[in-house]
Amino acid sequence: MDDGVISVPAVLGARAMARCDLLGAPPYSEAADQLTRRFLTPAHRAALDRLTDWMRAAGMSVRLDAAANLIGRYEGAAPDAAALLIGSHIDSVRNGGRYDGALGVALGIDCVDALAMAGRRLPFAIEVIAFGDEEGSRFPASMTCSRAVAGTADTTVLGMKDAEGTTLADAFAAFGLPNVDLGKAARKPREVLAFLEPHIEQGPRLEAEDLPIGVVTAIAAQKRLLVRLTGTAGHAGTTPMHLRRDPGPAAAEAILVIERICGAGTDGLVGTVGRISALPGSFNVIPGAVEFSMDIRAETSPVRDAAVAEISTEIEAIATRRGLGVTIELMQDLAESPCDLALTTLLEAAVRCVGVEPRRLPSGAGHDAMVIADLAPTAMLFIRCKGGVSHNPAESVRADDCVTALNAMLAFIDNLERDYRP
Amino acid sequence: MDDGVISVPAVLGARAMARCDLLGAPPYSEAADQLTRRFLTPAHRAALDRLTDWMRAAGMSVRLDAAANLIGRYEGAAPDAAALLIGSHIDSVRNGGRYDGALGVALGIDCVDALAMAGRRLPFAIEVIAFGDEEGSRFPASMTCSRAVAGTADTTVLGMKDAEGTTLADAFAAFGLPNVDLGKAARKPREVLAFLEPHIEQGPRLEAEDLPIGVVTAIAAQKRLLVRLTGTAGHAGTTPMHLRRDPGPAAAEAILVIERICGAGTDGLVGTVGRISALPGSFNVIPGAVEFSMDIRAETSPVRDAAVAEISTEIEAIATRRGLGVTIELMQDLAESPCDLALTTLLEAAVRCVGVEPRRLPSGAGHDAMVIADLAPTAMLFIRCKGGVSHNPAESVRADDCVTALNAMLAFIDNLERDYRP
Repeated sequence: MDDGVISVPAVLGARAMARCDLLGAPPYSEAADQLTRRFLTPAHRAALDRLTDWMRAAGMSVRLDAAANLIGRYEGAAPDAAALLIGSHIDSVRNGGRYDGALGVALGIDCVDALAMAGRRLPFAIEVIAFGDEEGSRFPASMTCSRAVAGTADTTVLGMKDAEGTTLADAFAAFGLPNVDLGKAARKPREVLAFLEPHIEQGPRLEAEDLPIGVVTAIAAQKRLLVRLTGTAGHAGTTPMHLRRDPGPAAAEAILVIERICGAGTDGLVGTVGRISALPGSFNVIPGAVEFSMDIRAETSPVRDAAVAEISTEIEAIATRRGLGVTIELMQDLAESPCDLALTTLLEAAVRCVGVEPRRLPSGAGHDAMVIADLAPTAMLFIRCKGGVSHNPAESVRADDCVTALNAMLAFIDNLERDYRP
Repeated sequence: MDDGVISVPAVLGARAMARCDLLGAPPYSEAADQLTRRFLTPAHRAALDRLTDWMRAAGMSVRLDAAANLIGRYEGAAPDAAALLIGSHIDSVRNGGRYDGALGVALGIDCVDALAMAGRRLPFAIEVIAFGDEEGSRFPASMTCSRAVAGTADTTVLGMKDAEGTTLADAFAAFGLPNVDLGKAARKPREVLAFLEPHIEQGPRLEAEDLPIGVVTAIAAQKRLLVRLTGTAGHAGTTPMHLRRDPGPAAAEAILVIERICGAGTDGLVGTVGRISALPGSFNVIPGAVEFSMDIRAETSPVRDAAVAEISTEIEAIATRRGLGVTIELMQDLAESPCDLALTTLLEAAVRCVGVEPRRLPSGAGHDAMVIADLAPTAMLFIRCKGGVSHNPAESVRADDCVTALNAMLAFIDNLERDYRP
């Protein structure tokens, strides 16, 4: 390896992957035969205990913040230096994969271990952080913990209940954090130099281009919409085809419009119909209404919005031609969250430094980085995952890719030390 | 009126309609604000009590058979003569219309009333029958009561449970029929001369041709199928359009194929997709599978089967082209049930007799007549209903059409007396 990058034992990086595998079963999972590690459960606690051991072994001092984020700090050359945060989330979806989130935390620990083994101290501290709740798989909100760190948490979430009726506040208390005050987890901007989130890609692009890692440019702009087409319900046996006002074929045309427009799009444009239902939903009744969801994303809001407008116009024309009613309701509107350009350029240089052509790609999924962007400049490193599969037990990464990712992270730290002027 | 038809007070026929309106509210409905009269409920009992009064007033002797069918008998000139059965079902779907079923029973009573007022006795008896369960809206089976009369009842249905967990046998007991034996309701073929079922059309054809009544040729052949297209579930944000194996657009193409092929069909061909769902069914997940129902009907099985084959071939080609899995499962296969040709010819002559051009049309919906066909020759008279709407509170008929129907029924009885040689 050239360019002053620390040469680390090949076991590091691969060890991060092995540690995720260890965390994929009880006591670090709520279930014996799958990985489910939801926020503030005993499985979450067990994982934090294990991470604490690993952080300490790597030379970090460890604390649990007011929002149940675990933070290991590796001091810089001077005390109280601003910190580079490295990490991701430690919770999982139900029956999830082992690397989504956890790999970013484990790579952060290996990164500090490599620095500590080399005896290096930097002009900034490094803090490895394991956010508690990115997925929102227990309570009906997500990224609660990174919002607390960024100082943007909404305290009303503490009244939310899980499926068993436990409030978030009570769950914090049971976890050892009574009278929780999310505001106390907020960091001051001057304490945080930058945030680096390593994360599996959860998509197939890197694999398709035979690249182990990639650099995220932005988290995509997203709109969720609900389309409802209304006609006239009728008897499936007694209504001739030419006398029907059936919203089903209109919905079918609409789905093909979405596929065509997004398929021809640029800038990461994607469109998904994940949910569809016909009402009343009987075998022998012509539907009176059909509802379906649209999830439209692109790297930029203008590209996304142009697609939504074009699709909506075509759906309205279909409804008019078929004599149907139509409503298109906007359910969620998330603007794109660009990663910091200067930081991303340093990360790109680091990727090139470890012999990989730096591929810039957007993230179609949301991440803690988009929340932390309110606090500090952020960069994201994507790691290839098999088949792009995630949120699934089949989630899979390669050990050599994890080593490559770790080396790129260490090169990034070098670049940051040498070149970064925030 | 010519041709020896009895001239009846114009109130008859119109009274049948008014009686259906009366039966459309409590105590003849389970709900105050809609008509729901399910099998063996107190509303069913109240309706039978009222029908009993009306049958007796028309000169009939009344009994409840072993399957909870109410039967009023108007004796012929000789005792124990074989009977012409006239009637339909007295149960309704949830939130149904007032005339579906009930009108056929009420017209049967008016028919006997007209004969009794004229002092006429025929060489055959007339029995007006109110079948208890055609719709299957309480227990998961339909036409239980007409099957009992035809001697084709499946006794295992007695173990079926309604939504509250009550078995059909217990519901019979609560209705006053303990230790129910459906076999005891079976009629001997020599006891039954023929069956005439007057029923609203439940479709828009008569209205479209400005005809008050029509003659049913056959109950359509029907196949119910379940189509399952399988691809690969994925993250809606991270999977580029060209790397997806999304079964949604394939299902969309299939729905348009069904509309095109059935729209171009003949012989009453209709095709309906009443139910559709995407799995897992989240806004932000590309479906791994899409399931939808197909209900395909035509006047004849060959026409229906040719359409099913053509549609299936096209769906399989769509799946192949898109790299998807596909299964097409046959859920129900009902052959067409032709009405008796000789009897239908007599009914046609009767319709002409009351000044209406006899329009022959198939029934897309199933009826008790298709079950009674196993016992005796059957004919069906359709009565125009507004907009073809049925199974809906908006179900509507015209009083003058009911009078026309009654006159045609009486003319049919004349024709039967004069010409019918079974």
